[in-house]
Amino acid sequence: LLAGERLPATRELAGQLGLNRTTVSAAYAVLEEAGLLRGEVGRGSFVAQRKNEANVPGAPPSGEPDALWRSVLGEPDGLPAAAGSRAAISFASSRPAEDEFPMDAFRRLAREVIDSPEAAAILQLGSPYGYEPLRRYLLDEARRSGAATSEDDLLITNGCQQALDLLSRVLVAPGTPVAVEDPVYHGLLSVFGRAGARLLPVPVGEHGLNVAALESVMASERPRLLITTPNFQNPTGTTLSQAARNAALELAQRTETIVIESDIYSDLRYEGAPAPSLKQLDSSGRTVLLGSYSKVAFPGLRVGWVIGPRPLIARLAEAKQISDLHSDQLAQAVLLRFAESGELKRHLEATRRAGALRLRAVLEACERHLPRGSRFTRPQGGMNLWVELPAPLESEAVLRGAEERGVNFLPGIYFGARREHRRGLRLSFGGLRPQEITRGVAAIGEAAAAELAGHRERAALEPVAALV
Amino acid sequence: LLAGERLPATRELAGQLGLNRTTVSAAYAVLEEAGLLRGEVGRGSFVAQRKNEANVPGAPPSGEPDALWRSVLGEPDGLPAAAGSRAAISFASSRPAEDEFPMDAFRRLAREVIDSPEAAAILQLGSPYGYEPLRRYLLDEARRSGAATSEDDLLITNGCQQALDLLSRVLVAPGTPVAVEDPVYHGLLSVFGRAGARLLPVPVGEHGLNVAALESVMASERPRLLITTPNFQNPTGTTLSQAARNAALELAQRTETIVIESDIYSDLRYEGAPAPSLKQLDSSGRTVLLGSYSKVAFPGLRVGWVIGPRPLIARLAEAKQISDLHSDQLAQAVLLRFAESGELKRHLEATRRAGALRLRAVLEACERHLPRGSRFTRPQGGMNLWVELPAPLESEAVLRGAEERGVNFLPGIYFGARREHRRGLRLSFGGLRPQEITRGVAAIGEAAAAELAGHRERAALEPVAALV
Repeated sequence: LLAGERLPATRELAGQLGLNRTTVSAAYAVLEEAGLLRGEVGRGSFVAQRKNEANVPGAPPSGEPDALWRSVLGEPDGLPAAAGSRAAISFASSRPAEDEFPMDAFRRLAREVIDSPEAAAILQLGSPYGYEPLRRYLLDEARRSGAATSEDDLLITNGCQQALDLLSRVLVAPGTPVAVEDPVYHGLLSVFGRAGARLLPVPVGEHGLNVAALESVMASERPRLLITTPNFQNPTGTTLSQAARNAALELAQRTETIVIESDIYSDLRYEGAPAPSLKQLDSSGRTVLLGSYSKVAFPGLRVGWVIGPRPLIARLAEAKQISDLHSDQLAQAVLLRFAESGELKRHLEATRRAGALRLRAVLEACERHLPRGSRFTRPQGGMNLWVELPAPLESEAVLRGAEERGVNFLPGIYFGARREHRRGLRLSFGGLRPQEITRGVAAIGEAAAAELAGHRERAALEPVAALV
Repeated sequence: LLAGERLPATRELAGQLGLNRTTVSAAYAVLEEAGLLRGEVGRGSFVAQRKNEANVPGAPPSGEPDALWRSVLGEPDGLPAAAGSRAAISFASSRPAEDEFPMDAFRRLAREVIDSPEAAAILQLGSPYGYEPLRRYLLDEARRSGAATSEDDLLITNGCQQALDLLSRVLVAPGTPVAVEDPVYHGLLSVFGRAGARLLPVPVGEHGLNVAALESVMASERPRLLITTPNFQNPTGTTLSQAARNAALELAQRTETIVIESDIYSDLRYEGAPAPSLKQLDSSGRTVLLGSYSKVAFPGLRVGWVIGPRPLIARLAEAKQISDLHSDQLAQAVLLRFAESGELKRHLEATRRAGALRLRAVLEACERHLPRGSRFTRPQGGMNLWVELPAPLESEAVLRGAEERGVNFLPGIYFGARREHRRGLRLSFGGLRPQEITRGVAAIGEAAAAELAGHRERAALEPVAALV
């Protein structure tokens, strides 16, 4: 298929392939999220601009490669689902709003960096630990806040995703038991699944990780790692209370479990009071903290970090060097200027004000437009909210109807560590305007209502069982 | 040890630890290359600016973590050896000269990118395949040159190192037989060693990969992959003739071996005529080409790429997404402008002129200053040259003496796929001025002469065997 080409309608393709139409719709949503397709309301789905293979003079087509590559590659093992979506209203990607990027500040500070005398050194090969001035800045900040002890060190990564990947390389062997939240960010499942971890799901309720369930998993399965996002968890948006944090840490200490805490959303609190991070509460040195600029600044600049005990960071730096030598230094230098200049703080304040309006919009819209019997989380910050539709609705079927209305989201099946979450769906509202959120949730509500009506019709047509 | 602190002299530390002094010197060289130490001529070695742990208010020191982390982390598995060295004259890192970076062009073009209307989109989350305009540009270029067929696709990576890492993830399982050059780039050994590959060394001679040896390895061991750098191989700088390229490809075809061709140095040809890449010669679709801007532009911007059959690239994109979602987009956009504007071509021409002078300097200096009986390669381009010292000299011992003279390099042991190369050493001359090269090689020659004299003295003192 060439760029710009129109894909068959989901109904048509489902018919051709003998598949359920929801399957085709879900595949389109994933492709769209990966930037391979773009949806246009009322017109259908089109191949995005990424191939350019028509009429290019090149080498002759190759001879017999397909069998070779088929034999070598086997089955794919991942799920392409990271990049942005171009649906009219897309709830599919957990990312900030592009039109709220502080471009003037970025341009001014980036110019300072490229005009500085350090520019040549920034463009030279660097250290696997990261650009030293940024590393020192982040470590100082963390020490000041109590998020790093004097025993800790810090490694810069290409966003939080690479931090997870490096941790999986260093800490996980095939069969290593790893406790994870359920539902949980699909990119985390891919990383630890790929590393061969035995994933132990711990349910997430309205108030985050269920600590009683955690205790039972820890007692019976002895996980080596617990991976958790206590603030505005992805996909549920839920937050763990301070009491629950203390309890989780105590459990980890008793069972000698290492705790990996993803803290990438904590600066995006729109209401309520913050609780200390596990890393700040932990005096036993077992907690590893992941931070990132991706959710609070510019995700296209891939800069995150890991804070943990020095021997771990040294091992992660080795793994980092094997992975890609070091992170891009221009991005690191620009983000350092952004933080040091106070512009990051200013931008965060603006983001929180805008985020509060988004949050109110999504909560009100869910209250108003989702079908009766729906349950949804009530986050106090972050970018994500989790909906559970009432039976017999399934989120993939509702997605199909929503897409016809120009709206998409990621259905629950992508977030299941064990359970399938067929009634669940994630609404990522961080990149949308309040009016878009309202319209989008209304469209999802319409799609759900139509789907419910279809169910009722079908039920009415079913033969009544004989009374015997 | 705190930043700025002086390390004990190698002699002193060797005494304290009961180790051979060459071991300590080699460790210092590796630490220096990783940016953790800096050497100052006549003053010793100092901890580089990367820790900042004195007098920082922070959380209390942690309780009992060491045992936990020791039990979890076990033994380190990598070799920290990528970043730049700060010795007075360092032959240790294969990288371009910072003071020849075209900073004016960089500043102008980077400003164009940050001021452009696309800047906000560049700062938003992107595609695992890479920044689309750069991806399309590189693919068009490759199609025009015959390095990509219409069956091929292209993925942007964080430099060539990440391309190797992703390939190892997709193509290598524990025990997979992989043919590699010997000696070979240590970062390649780390990647494929970590992935559990069974490495099959194929000797590199004066004219690159030994094709007769390759044939015998292929016949007896049936490697799944062959990884090779036909142009200016790292560490030897050697180049494979076109006849040998054809023969290697024919062998690969006969044995159904996949060929991974690293082509990151080919633009740095200072003399002689170029041969087509394996990828250009291969009509069977089994060759995967790795390219990079790191050796020819700005290594601190981590941008490389892989060209290969579409199904492989799709799998690599999945692995890329799991690794770090996507590569930094600002760096990609700046390098695209650099290439499109013609400044890359201009810079390459200047680099080739300067490289020719470097190459002449290093060859003349080796001829003149290395001890009699030394052998060294005669590259026609690239950044590296390989020396084999005559018995009984070992390169680690010579490194010790060279360091006392303010010069360092990487000894052969870091490049051995199987053989230890104890007499070998790599001279990376890409980042040095011709006068530095001359002085540096002269210092190595002096160190070798002193070491030889020491050998003779010790031999003279040895008791003569009784004649019985």
